[in-house]
Amino acid sequence: MSWITPEPNIDVEKPLYICVLSNTKTSQIPGLSAAGKTAELTVYTPAGDSELMHTGNIISVPVLPMTPPLDTPTPAVITRSALNLTKTPHIFVNSGLMILPDKSIPMKSTSGKPGEDIRNGVAVHDPKDIFENAKKIGYELAPTTDHPIIGESTPGGTTTAMGVLMALGYDAKASSSADINPIELKKQVIQEAMSRNNLKFGCLSNDPWKAVAYLGDPMMPAAAGLAAGFKEYDPEMHIILAGGTQMAAVFAVLKHAGVNTKNVCLATTRYVLEDKSANFSDLSEKVGFKSYIADPGFGKSRLPGIQRYESGTIKEGAGAGGAMYLSALLGISDQRFREEVENVCGILKAGKV
Amino acid sequence: MSWITPEPNIDVEKPLYICVLSNTKTSQIPGLSAAGKTAELTVYTPAGDSELMHTGNIISVPVLPMTPPLDTPTPAVITRSALNLTKTPHIFVNSGLMILPDKSIPMKSTSGKPGEDIRNGVAVHDPKDIFENAKKIGYELAPTTDHPIIGESTPGGTTTAMGVLMALGYDAKASSSADINPIELKKQVIQEAMSRNNLKFGCLSNDPWKAVAYLGDPMMPAAAGLAAGFKEYDPEMHIILAGGTQMAAVFAVLKHAGVNTKNVCLATTRYVLEDKSANFSDLSEKVGFKSYIADPGFGKSRLPGIQRYESGTIKEGAGAGGAMYLSALLGISDQRFREEVENVCGILKAGKV
Repeated sequence: MSWITPEPNIDVEKPLYICVLSNTKTSQIPGLSAAGKTAELTVYTPAGDSELMHTGNIISVPVLPMTPPLDTPTPAVITRSALNLTKTPHIFVNSGLMILPDKSIPMKSTSGKPGEDIRNGVAVHDPKDIFENAKKIGYELAPTTDHPIIGESTPGGTTTAMGVLMALGYDAKASSSADINPIELKKQVIQEAMSRNNLKFGCLSNDPWKAVAYLGDPMMPAAAGLAAGFKEYDPEMHIILAGGTQMAAVFAVLKHAGVNTKNVCLATTRYVLEDKSANFSDLSEKVGFKSYIADPGFGKSRLPGIQRYESGTIKEGAGAGGAMYLSALLGISDQRFREEVENVCGILKAGKV
Repeated sequence: MSWITPEPNIDVEKPLYICVLSNTKTSQIPGLSAAGKTAELTVYTPAGDSELMHTGNIISVPVLPMTPPLDTPTPAVITRSALNLTKTPHIFVNSGLMILPDKSIPMKSTSGKPGEDIRNGVAVHDPKDIFENAKKIGYELAPTTDHPIIGESTPGGTTTAMGVLMALGYDAKASSSADINPIELKKQVIQEAMSRNNLKFGCLSNDPWKAVAYLGDPMMPAAAGLAAGFKEYDPEMHIILAGGTQMAAVFAVLKHAGVNTKNVCLATTRYVLEDKSANFSDLSEKVGFKSYIADPGFGKSRLPGIQRYESGTIKEGAGAGGAMYLSALLGISDQRFREEVENVCGILKAGKV
């Protein structure tokens, strides 16, 4: 697999993939999130993604996470493939799930409540508690790994990311899982949430927890807390936040909360980087994070649903960029990766799709 | 409002309506439950029903509970109307919700977990604990009422009711919220669940909690526990279980568990009684419960969605039969009741429908 950015210069022996799963009522605003066949069905997406990543199929949820209008399968298939090929251990963190996956899914919990619709005045209950609980989880997991890769499945999360980044003073244009980014609707929802709490651009740059409480989602303090826990165990540890705009927001929260961000980098897909409706490179510069991008060459796939990633459907999610990073780092070829993704999709089709 | 059965001969001063809210993965089996626009959306129905009953509209859930193909509104509109007209106090009991309603909804909890898909070997976790917790709730509420009416909102609940009744030795044909009762699918699902646990018709007649654990839903031990708690406070108290086949199952559980069922009666709708795909009168005789049925004359409604109750859509749910019972008992006329139902529907249409 080829690198779009310079190859990371690190030795990795024990990578660990951790995926934060969160629900927020913000994803149920019609037209906002494409991480589910309908706005209402986004509620099943994190649970379904975790089942798919862990077992290769959905088990207990009634519907496969997919993006309309062409029912493109969730990027969790990409992460599943990378975990399979690289034999990377993985674990999930429940931070405000409304729907739990099957109990066979390995899971820690931050005890966070589901996120609210940010237009109603509160976004996340007790973000600092979530952060502290996640930090403990990170600290406990730290001895098992030298390179944690933290992904997420949080429908509606690009809107909350954009909101938090704006409150922290960054002019963010979030990427989207939809072909056509509903950026105006996102702005309107964020504007409504900001007005409701009398917030202005940049006004919470000294209080990132308040930014999360008013505009964020329960994934953010969880991912931030995990990173902080790993850093507490080993201040030099190389950590990957696997995602685009959403992980940019997590990085910004860490930075504004004064957490050590040395060797904390993002890994995302080239579809996020190339998304003209968003501004990832610009954000990278302003927020001050480094990001890695590996290219799996999905345009050559025999499956139209996988080719569609190249034309801009979905782009990122469930740590797919981190999965590509991991595959490139551990020497998986383009072709093997594509075949494995096709294989995972094939099983899905034989199963519940 | 006119009585189809003999009018109950009781004095009521302080009625109280209690609605048990439960989710079970069984409702997500495609084609089984019509208590939601799609099988996946049934997950929102109990939370939405409670919001509608308490406020007249949905607040936090993204979708109004309705039954396809004509999007007939949930029977919670009927219960809302009766509570409005009779000014009856009400409270909700969470017994295994996957989706919580808005926090302004008055709510007790049995601490029960959501129900599973009964085909997977377990239906309800710890039914006896749910029963005991609900019993405490009933005992605590008892001083506030002389006539509790216990309803439920549990998508998929007629299938689990039929399963439990069969395990207890009753040849039940459950009624359905759908125009065409998917009775063969229900039987197939129950058969699969029974085979999995090596159960035969009537084999659990001495162990109703095991019947609930293998084939039921978390509403059953909650409703049974509430009734037992009221009975513990006052063994003579008149209690209404508001529902059709589902409350027949609750009555059977009480009876087989040796709980005092004196003055415990059902109230349901004439649509359940007249459902030729079910056998309510037969069940009533065999299980040994008395039921009250009042007729609101919905055929005369100007709203097609309400008229459809007469032609067999929905039939019962959210304690609608109990709501009709209450309205008849407290002297509300047919016309006033219909007008109020139309009024509640009108507000819905102006709002989110």
